[in-house]
Amino acid sequence: MAKIVSLCKRRGFVFPSSEIYGGLKSCYDYGPLGVELKRNITGEWWRTMVHEREDIVGIDASIIMHPAVWKASGHVDGFCDPLVECLECHARFRADKAPRLPPGSEVAYRDGKTREKKRGKVEARGYVCPECNSPSLSPERMFNLMFRTNLGPIESEESTVYLRPETAQAMFVNFQNVFTSYRLKPPFGIAQVGKSFRNEITVKHFIFRSCEFEQMEMEYFVEPGTDEEWFAYWRSERLKWYLSLGLSSEKVRFREHAPQERAHYAKASGDVEYLFPWGWDELEGIANRTDFDLKRHQESSGKKLEYVDPNREDPRTGAKPFRFLPYVVEPAAGATRSVLAFLCDSYDEEPPSEARAEGRTVLRLHARLAPVKVAVFPLVRKDEWLTGKAREIVKEFWRSGTNSFYDEKDAIGRRYARQDEVGTPFCITVDGQTREDDTVTIRYRDDMRQDRIKVADAVEIVRKKILE
Amino acid sequence: MAKIVSLCKRRGFVFPSSEIYGGLKSCYDYGPLGVELKRNITGEWWRTMVHEREDIVGIDASIIMHPAVWKASGHVDGFCDPLVECLECHARFRADKAPRLPPGSEVAYRDGKTREKKRGKVEARGYVCPECNSPSLSPERMFNLMFRTNLGPIESEESTVYLRPETAQAMFVNFQNVFTSYRLKPPFGIAQVGKSFRNEITVKHFIFRSCEFEQMEMEYFVEPGTDEEWFAYWRSERLKWYLSLGLSSEKVRFREHAPQERAHYAKASGDVEYLFPWGWDELEGIANRTDFDLKRHQESSGKKLEYVDPNREDPRTGAKPFRFLPYVVEPAAGATRSVLAFLCDSYDEEPPSEARAEGRTVLRLHARLAPVKVAVFPLVRKDEWLTGKAREIVKEFWRSGTNSFYDEKDAIGRRYARQDEVGTPFCITVDGQTREDDTVTIRYRDDMRQDRIKVADAVEIVRKKILE
Repeated sequence: MAKIVSLCKRRGFVFPSSEIYGGLKSCYDYGPLGVELKRNITGEWWRTMVHEREDIVGIDASIIMHPAVWKASGHVDGFCDPLVECLECHARFRADKAPRLPPGSEVAYRDGKTREKKRGKVEARGYVCPECNSPSLSPERMFNLMFRTNLGPIESEESTVYLRPETAQAMFVNFQNVFTSYRLKPPFGIAQVGKSFRNEITVKHFIFRSCEFEQMEMEYFVEPGTDEEWFAYWRSERLKWYLSLGLSSEKVRFREHAPQERAHYAKASGDVEYLFPWGWDELEGIANRTDFDLKRHQESSGKKLEYVDPNREDPRTGAKPFRFLPYVVEPAAGATRSVLAFLCDSYDEEPPSEARAEGRTVLRLHARLAPVKVAVFPLVRKDEWLTGKAREIVKEFWRSGTNSFYDEKDAIGRRYARQDEVGTPFCITVDGQTREDDTVTIRYRDDMRQDRIKVADAVEIVRKKILE
Repeated sequence: MAKIVSLCKRRGFVFPSSEIYGGLKSCYDYGPLGVELKRNITGEWWRTMVHEREDIVGIDASIIMHPAVWKASGHVDGFCDPLVECLECHARFRADKAPRLPPGSEVAYRDGKTREKKRGKVEARGYVCPECNSPSLSPERMFNLMFRTNLGPIESEESTVYLRPETAQAMFVNFQNVFTSYRLKPPFGIAQVGKSFRNEITVKHFIFRSCEFEQMEMEYFVEPGTDEEWFAYWRSERLKWYLSLGLSSEKVRFREHAPQERAHYAKASGDVEYLFPWGWDELEGIANRTDFDLKRHQESSGKKLEYVDPNREDPRTGAKPFRFLPYVVEPAAGATRSVLAFLCDSYDEEPPSEARAEGRTVLRLHARLAPVKVAVFPLVRKDEWLTGKAREIVKEFWRSGTNSFYDEKDAIGRRYARQDEVGTPFCITVDGQTREDDTVTIRYRDDMRQDRIKVADAVEIVRKKILE
């Protein structure tokens, strides 16, 4: 993990936010390569979930929504963590995540001021401070995870608004506008990629859990009774998606939630998990949310959110039309987490071997995800014909919409090594022979094989490999 | 304008946010077509500003940055509007935007409670309430436009953080991390697309001025002394960009700011303006920000932000290395505003003519911006061979990365009309002849011309037209 964090900073994937000011708890900025990797991940999601499906459309809603949305969804009252302050070391922590000990058992800790050793007994609530072991704790206080701010010049109860803690509610609130304007009928989905915000007390594992993060969520609206089938469908589809982009199959799994893990509204739920360096952890949650959300918004807003099928009979009454509140199956993926998973999974160090005196670091990213698809080098930087030709080839790639990168600095071996380290799948070198027969060398990242190809074929060869 | 707002809602471009709860002041959600249009605009900007240039790289920074950033930039102290409340009608307005009248002149207005006519004299400050004309006003109060919130569980001065009011500061704060990791030297640029937030008191013109909006900003770092040249360069490049995507040349202009319009740190500035239905208004600001921002951040953070060129002599001392704080030229475009400009500019109504009995509404969007590039229809929905073939063609387009849409509902004329209205440049119809000779009809949106083409050529023909 330390190696990945270091590579991220050194090569411009991820920087601590506002680093010149000492950084800000759990906020990160994506550098030149990180922003491309993240764009490619969200772009692939959008392609497979929205563009390549007749039944799903996208939206992009505002981050600040009407506060009534969060009252109806239950977030204003229920999206809370129990917060406790240690009276000795003043650490703040979540009661439900603190180390549990039998009430009455004896513990040793240090006095907050004198630093002298003290002994004490665990209180009835059965946990101690995770930092210093002290059983001397403030009362639990429920702390809402939504960031609050005020819309307009007056700070008051009425002007309070929230930064969305999930993108999903926008799909429920826009449900009717979307299906009316787009003439959709269930089963259909509404998808969104965007930032969400949670005022998390504990943040850890680099970009894995941060206060500001990016989600890729899709709400799939189905006829009640077909929801279990669709839950199974999406569980399988979403697993396939990660595998199709190259995540190692032995490091991805779906784990069904036990009943006590489920949100109160969910009929079934589970997580797509990845085996991160610290263990299995969530990449994407998939839930059968039933009609919980639409029902809540229908009640709170007073607006009918039913789907009306004029051509079908209501099975309860035998009469047309058939009105129903759709059930919702939700695959909710973390874009930020996916960035980390793809980085961890593709990171590889090859030791020196008989064939190669020097080892190398290589990011074996799927070509569709690689920030730069092809790097183009003139063998020698001082030969203007070579640099001119290499730049011409770069432009040909640009014209075809393939992100390519020109590099003339340092020896060719170092240039290959730099591209391996950031996951560029193809390198093209222009050399003396190019002048004679208009061919170049293409070098493949994974096996370092080199082929001689015609300049005129370069774009098509790379494009095909990427689409493979 | 009313027609555009109505089209936006009816066809799924833009909806009022949280509409089922009565909407939220100046917040908008992008529907299925709006999100594609916005993605295409920001995608084109990214392609031309980042991918197709050796000298510019992208970043994606967090919206919540360290509060010290906004102190250094001057936003905490200076990003304020003078806010006034009318003591009669209780409207809140900006003093600097209120109707100005000579102090002492007499005005007529109505009493806030009794609604009786009153007469009064304009005070020394020389303006009245823009709503009711009353000269009876509260004192001016400076109101900061940044949204404030708190990071962590305690609401206090120290935990106060802001939603960024511009994306630009992230480029200054990350300046050193980016140029070090990417081995750049001036002139070079850092670009970002993302949301910014301003707690505007007055919002108007649909999505033109809203509290939450999307920017496309680029900071171009240059050697001092070359800044004027680069300002001229970017002014011309950015104008060309809008024209290359089809904005009418007589409706786009660059207006240089008068000295009193300029921000205090700017050496030169001006706006790319578009002739909106309400008049000329800003699409993009271009400014020569000098070394103001880097200098402020260098002073506040105590970190050196100079660029050091080891191979050049400092012209002041004659000795190597040459250290300097780059000047910055900034083209800062509004993505949200661009969406509106492209919609306004492309909206067209064709009256019925001799050749065509019915008129039509058509969005003449550039093919690169069109939400859907190609719609594919089976002539008859009941013929399974036709629908199967049409869906096969749709999939071919998907595979090539071209957003395509399948539609079988209603008569073919209505399907064309629906696509014209949302700007789809190409429609392909599969009919009986397709079965015989594997050809289809391609119909062009703008002149409604129809050609017969081979199915096998369809993807390439459309791809070429889009890249034209």
